[in-house]
This record gives sequence, C-alpha cells and structure tokens, in this order.
Amino acid sequence: MLVYLNGEFVSREQAAVPVEDRGFLFGDGVYEVIRAVNGRFFTAHEHLARMEEGLAAIGMRLPGGMTRQGVLEIAERLLRENSLTEGHATIYLQVTRGAAPRTHFFPSPPVEPTLYLTAAPFTVPEEVVARGVSAITAPDVRWSRCNLKTLNLLANVLAKQSAVEQGATEAIFVRDGVITEGASTNVFVVVDGKIRTFPVCNYILSGVTRGVVIELAAELGIPLIERPVRVEEISRAEEIFLTGTTTDVLAVVEVDGLQVGTGRPGAISTALGGALAERMGQVPASAAR
Amino acid sequence: MLVYLNGEFVSREQAAVPVEDRGFLFGDGVYEVIRAVNGRFFTAHEHLARMEEGLAAIGMRLPGGMTRQGVLEIAERLLRENSLTEGHATIYLQVTRGAAPRTHFFPSPPVEPTLYLTAAPFTVPEEVVARGVSAITAPDVRWSRCNLKTLNLLANVLAKQSAVEQGATEAIFVRDGVITEGASTNVFVVVDGKIRTFPVCNYILSGVTRGVVIELAAELGIPLIERPVRVEEISRAEEIFLTGTTTDVLAVVEVDGLQVGTGRPGAISTALGGALAERMGQVPASAAR
Repeated sequence: MLVYLNGEFVSREQAAVPVEDRGFLFGDGVYEVIRAVNGRFFTAHEHLARMEEGLAAIGMRLPGGMTRQGVLEIAERLLRENSLTEGHATIYLQVTRGAAPRTHFFPSPPVEPTLYLTAAPFTVPEEVVARGVSAITAPDVRWSRCNLKTLNLLANVLAKQSAVEQGATEAIFVRDGVITEGASTNVFVVVDGKIRTFPVCNYILSGVTRGVVIELAAELGIPLIERPVRVEEISRAEEIFLTGTTTDVLAVVEVDGLQVGTGRPGAISTALGGALAERMGQVPASAAR
Repeated sequence: MLVYLNGEFVSREQAAVPVEDRGFLFGDGVYEVIRAVNGRFFTAHEHLARMEEGLAAIGMRLPGGMTRQGVLEIAERLLRENSLTEGHATIYLQVTRGAAPRTHFFPSPPVEPTLYLTAAPFTVPEEVVARGVSAITAPDVRWSRCNLKTLNLLANVLAKQSAVEQGATEAIFVRDGVITEGASTNVFVVVDGKIRTFPVCNYILSGVTRGVVIELAAELGIPLIERPVRVEEISRAEEIFLTGTTTDVLAVVEVDGLQVGTGRPGAISTALGGALAERMGQVPASAAR
C-alpha cells in the first residue's frame, strides 16, 4: 500500500514520522476520513472545509503551498496507485503541527506541518446493515470542543473498546443525561415518529454524513428535529441509527442489552440508508474535484 | 543527542515511529517527565508508579519484559551517554499502544507498545524564579480524566499558546468557577495565610512535585488545605504559585494583568522553593534506583 507523507509517496512500511512530531507527542492535529466510490469522492468538499475550519480553530494550516485541490489530487493518486478506483474505498487524511523540540506552546518560529494521507479498500457490510447492531451507553467524558475532529481521541478509543468488550459495535456517549453522539458516529433516535439528533454545537462533531442524512430526511418528508434525546427516552425509541463516513446509516437494534423497537432495522433507518446509498452511487464527476 | 526507542539507542534525528503508531493517530498513550540532579533521579518511583497507574487505567502496559527498573536503567544510560550526569536534566518518557491498522478499539491481537525515552539538559531559570511570572486564566475545556497523564494534550497546548501570546508563562484552568490546575503545572493559592490547592480527583493531575510541596509545607508548619479556590478569590490572594517537575515552585505575581499580593514572590513560595531545592539536592543515591 502506497501512502503520502510530507511530499512523498512511500510504502506504508516505510512511512514514519520523527518522534518529535507533535501528533505523536500531543495529539496536536486534525484528521478526516473521506469516502470514495468508483474512484470518485463523496462530499469531499464538506470534509475539506471542516478540516480547514478545524485547522484554523487550533491555529494550524496545511503545509506551505498545499491547497484543498492539492490534497484531493494526492487522494486521487492514492486511489489510482493502490488500485482502489473500483468499488468503495476510504481516504484517511491527517495534519499535525509538525516536528519540533517538545514545548506545550506552538513551535516558534513555526515548523512545516505534517501531512499524511492513506487509502484503504472498504466493503459495505451488507449483512450487518441488514441485521442492525448493538450499542452501549458510556459517560461522555470528552472535552468540550468535540466539534473539532482532532487527534485527541483517547476517550473515543476507550469507549469503543468498552463497546467491543461487551460485544457491541458502538458506544453512545451520554453527557448530563442526554445522548450526544457515538464514539465514531452521530446518533439519531426516532421517538413518536419523529427523528431527533443532538444539535450542532461544541459537544458533537458536525458529521458530514449527518448533514447528508438530515437533507435526505427532508427530501423524503420524514420529520426531523435537532433536539437532544434524554437517555431515558431510549426505552421508548422506535428506531435508533448511527451515521458516519464509514458507517453510512446503521440501525441500532439493542442498547445496553435492551431491544430497540422491533429489534430489527426500522422503516426510517432503512429508507435513509437506501437514499444515502443511492446518492453515494450518484456522485457527479464534478464532486470528485 | 541519543534517544531510546523500542529497544534501541539511536540519534534523535534517526528516531521515527510508523505512521500507524497509535500515539500519532489517537494520542493513545501516557508520558512522564522525570528530573535528574547530578545523575540521580528525583522522585523517580512516584513518576513510574503514576505511569503504571495511567497505563492500567487505559488498558495498556509496558512492552513485554520491560520493568520499572528496566525503564530507569534506560534513563540512566541516556543521562550517561548524553553527558547529563552533572547538574540538572530531565528524562521524557512516553508509552503508546503501538502501531497497528487504524481502529478506534484496541488492536486485536495486541501489538507491542511503543516505548520512547529522551534526555535533555535543564537549567533552573534563577532570574525568572526570583522575579515570578505572570499567568492568564483560561476555561478548563479538558476532558474529565485529567488525573491521567495522557498524550491527549491539545487543550493544554492551546491554553499554553494563549498564555504565551499574551506574554504570560502559564494558563490557569478554571472549571465551574474554580481554579483546577495550570496547563502544565499544579496551582497553589495563599488566602488568609493558608495555602489552598484543588483536591486530587479526576479534574487534575496528581502532580509529583505537588505532593512533595504539600509534604514540605507540613514540615515547615505552613497551613495547607486541599480545597478549591474560586476565581474571584484570586484578587485577594496573598500569593499564588505553580509546581511541576520542570517548574519547581514558581511564584505567579500577576494574573490576567492584575498584580498578585505585593507583585513579588511571597514568603511562602520562597520558603517552599528553597525547601524543594534543598530536598532535590539531597537525593539519596538509593532514590536513583
């Protein structure tokens, strides 16, 4: 597998960063995961716009001379050279503040940021999607800047591991008694026939797929409101589903061992999942640029 | 400068970790900084005990076969080979969950953790200590597991940078109206002749130097209570000081542009700083092991 690291395309085995990279020392950087279908990126500009907002929010930038278009060209080359232009694939993209002697404050003068991209094949887990998954709830112990897609992911790592150890697929974070989001997904809950999801603010990531699904719900005429769901409301949820770049729309049929709705993916999750797959299959060529 | 990385002593320029190291991707690891004086470690066992507690808390361990004693031997060799056995020096020590294809959950089967140590000369900034420093207050946006010394340090990085940009040395975090700790220090405030500091819990790091200073205060008969200080109380603080492995006892003489006490390091800070320096100079040879 060929990856991109700081201006060079190298094999993954050769790709290494200095121990003084601030990604390694502080988690000082941001990342994105972008989906590609048949060599075309899905919602690439939304991902890159979020990356740029994240970089700005933490006082960072892309390496000198690198543009959003340049990043996409690297991603395209990774798809091509790794033979990932047919079917589904993902691009992982990470920017850190670069390598410098360790100080909490930013390197002064600034050093060149680190830019790392890698591509991987992706398979939609059809059977899992058809069956739905189980989730656990977990205390949302994260910081209060969850709107930033940073490398400070230890809380997410620990929650996801906890889920896996309990035989579940996702951990749903609960802060102050309400569902915020999943460890690597956004969470939607259908109560009284209406979809609800936590509003965009500093406590969740404004997921790109979340945004698409909200659009699709409107197109399908399914009522949706960005309003928090209290954890007690899970017991009367008709459906729960997760969204994410590699999650698409994934029904949650069990939370903390208790069945959700009928115990099978519901009509709303299924409709939205279908609509998303359709839209993803219809990526216009222009959207790949 | 020679550093240690995964079983080898290499020059810092050569030391690199795979892009799939979970330190680089998730900040998935812990670290410690240990002070050495004339080739002897100060409170090494307290640091290593905290490291082991941190590793256990996040489901990690040292690389196979590595013991606390083994870590100290590496640190000793780094001091020797880098000619740091005279005067002050620091050891930086970091453990990550290792390199593996990126998944939020832990690698399964587990991979060998990454162990990285480096040594650096350290100079006590006598003039700065004599003059005292300024600090700013900053919202404590960190997660609620601040008792763990992890690599998820972006909130600390941003707060410290904010301090530096305002011409200050440290950012003092304020959560729910009370001072928790500094971006890389613990904070003590003298009010009504009594030292107060935030109690050990999930909202602060249980600093090793903090612990030593609490002991020293008791020895010197200075009243100290582990009780939060409200941010409004700063204006009537007689003294404020910071503690840390590379901070020792450092008086804060200005917070958010307002003078603290007399505007000079106070009697209590000075007494505790002196007592700490004395204790550090008296590290028994046995404590180095």
